[in-house]
Amino acid sequence: MSDSPVLALAKELICRRSVTPEDAGCQDLMIERLKALGFEVEIMVFEDTTNFWARRGTQAPLFAFAGHTDVVPAGKAELWHTPPFEPTVIDDYLHGRGAADMKGSLACMIVAVERFIAAHPDHQGSIAFLITSDEEGPFINGTTRVVDTLMARDEIIDMCIVGEPSSTHAVGDVVKNGRRGSLTGDLVVKGIQGHVAYPHLANNPVHQALPALTELAAIQWDEGNAFFPPTSFQIPNVHAGTGASNVIPGEFHVQFNFRYSTELTAEEIQRRVHSTFDAHGLDYDLKWTLNGKPFLTDAGSLVEAVTKSVSQINHKEPALLTTGGTSDGRFIAQMGTQVVELGPVNATIHKVNECVSIPDLEKLTDMYQHTLNNLLAR
Amino acid sequence: MSDSPVLALAKELICRRSVTPEDAGCQDLMIERLKALGFEVEIMVFEDTTNFWARRGTQAPLFAFAGHTDVVPAGKAELWHTPPFEPTVIDDYLHGRGAADMKGSLACMIVAVERFIAAHPDHQGSIAFLITSDEEGPFINGTTRVVDTLMARDEIIDMCIVGEPSSTHAVGDVVKNGRRGSLTGDLVVKGIQGHVAYPHLANNPVHQALPALTELAAIQWDEGNAFFPPTSFQIPNVHAGTGASNVIPGEFHVQFNFRYSTELTAEEIQRRVHSTFDAHGLDYDLKWTLNGKPFLTDAGSLVEAVTKSVSQINHKEPALLTTGGTSDGRFIAQMGTQVVELGPVNATIHKVNECVSIPDLEKLTDMYQHTLNNLLAR
Repeated sequence: MSDSPVLALAKELICRRSVTPEDAGCQDLMIERLKALGFEVEIMVFEDTTNFWARRGTQAPLFAFAGHTDVVPAGKAELWHTPPFEPTVIDDYLHGRGAADMKGSLACMIVAVERFIAAHPDHQGSIAFLITSDEEGPFINGTTRVVDTLMARDEIIDMCIVGEPSSTHAVGDVVKNGRRGSLTGDLVVKGIQGHVAYPHLANNPVHQALPALTELAAIQWDEGNAFFPPTSFQIPNVHAGTGASNVIPGEFHVQFNFRYSTELTAEEIQRRVHSTFDAHGLDYDLKWTLNGKPFLTDAGSLVEAVTKSVSQINHKEPALLTTGGTSDGRFIAQMGTQVVELGPVNATIHKVNECVSIPDLEKLTDMYQHTLNNLLAR
Repeated sequence: MSDSPVLALAKELICRRSVTPEDAGCQDLMIERLKALGFEVEIMVFEDTTNFWARRGTQAPLFAFAGHTDVVPAGKAELWHTPPFEPTVIDDYLHGRGAADMKGSLACMIVAVERFIAAHPDHQGSIAFLITSDEEGPFINGTTRVVDTLMARDEIIDMCIVGEPSSTHAVGDVVKNGRRGSLTGDLVVKGIQGHVAYPHLANNPVHQALPALTELAAIQWDEGNAFFPPTSFQIPNVHAGTGASNVIPGEFHVQFNFRYSTELTAEEIQRRVHSTFDAHGLDYDLKWTLNGKPFLTDAGSLVEAVTKSVSQINHKEPALLTTGGTSDGRFIAQMGTQVVELGPVNATIHKVNECVSIPDLEKLTDMYQHTLNNLLAR
């Protein structure tokens, strides 16, 4: 039995070694298929990153699929049961780096669009693809630059499905309809270096900072709301000291990260953090990085259409959640776009032996096609 | 004008590049001079470290000079005003790595003994030298091994001057008559690694440890006593995290060090630290290293003789203090020996442009010689 169109395309994408920011020819493969459907394609190269924007139609509403061809590194190949860049089917699963995040989704999008256009060559509105090869990396030259370009010419995406692996146990059990904000603080607490035998001549910045950090870690920042879990504060990295056991360090480096709900703003968080450090009399530098503001697509035609199409396949509505990590959805949402994420089960992403259920890929193709039907069929 | 005997010998020692554990011929130079005075010399090599024990006389009391020929690295030579291993006189100061810590003292000891023996060839008791080349390094194969050897054959030092740079502003203003204990704890707090976006699936060991560490840093461990400053707790090293801002660390490494007085024991400190961590419910490993127990030589013939000899030169009694870092004195004190440290000003030790006052070296020679006179002259 020969491979289904979705499985065949997913395999072709996986065997291309597109570790960020490499695209390794994945986009050419997609572009070829989209051109055959009448899409206008613009390749947008920013620094080391290749992106493309493809559009079919000129009317509103503008519906887009968004995603990335790059994958995270495979790590040690010998830890994998199968070579990470040789797509391999075992039972009902397709194995390989990117199978679930997100070359499987890309294959589903292409095949869904081919089927939809075959049935509705004269659809309403416009269909587009916004594809980058810089989602797993620094996300500086990818989706955010394409969004800037589109906004500069007033080409606004009305609705967007990002193909991120949103599902927990089976495809479509979860649709992400927003994401928390992510705010990182890089703190340097300054003390005075010295010999541990002469503590009165030194000032240990770790000791100085401990009470303030204890206080921040104990704060209940908010209780979340109907769509967002409570804001969380985490310290992922700390470092102080020369390694010598007899030297009081001169600086204490602490990195903390907030995942915050729409109940708070980055400014409110920053104000409270600074006031805590100031109240404890710390001498410090603090550099903030706003990785993404929170966004929410809580109602409207896209959520309705996606919920309906998932229910048509699964006979069960998806849960609408905002949990989980950041995605390029945050950049697209800045346009005022309705954004949801719908993709396969994320259990194996970024791990060895990444894999995706082949029946789930077929269902995901149907969900994408039904969504197009629900939104753009005449 | 030719160099004085002390200055000449100090220069000869400094030009030998004896970075720990290298001796670079310094001990041969000393041994040659001591043999000429009738000392019996035993060279004791342990692993990479050369030590020697030299003794003149067989009677009690056994008085010893102790010290080290090794020096700390010079660091970047271009930061020095003069080449670190080319002894250079500028005004009244001798510059070079080891000038103050402690090749200057070694030269003073040798010349003082030469003068004392010339005047008192038939002195009371015995004079000895315990010299190592592993004081600035791991101090595993140096003084502690020589002490073990002597104790095994019941050859007990009664009184010892260690030539460590004890002085603050002028030679002899401070004599160290004891040292605090030093106890190091290497703590690993265990959590559960995870993605910062899913804090409920992880357990941040930094957050777990913060309240307990805050509590330890705030404790007044004791108030010291007449001879010891208060016990101090310092955190010289902390580390957690992979560097990635989205990963909750699985472990938090913290190193802390106590400098403790004779008001406390290592066991009491350990008990209180463990009970603090246990009270906070931490999951942790803690490895203790007892670098040295506190010791005190608070009265007796050695303190009297040294105080008197310093006063004879300075017309002012030295302050008897127990502040400062550990020294090999802690190993010798284990024999029940009366131990004091008397050496030059420590302002430049372990720094670039290390130097020592030449008039201070002449005075230190006199102080050592007077001490021998006060203790062993017939």
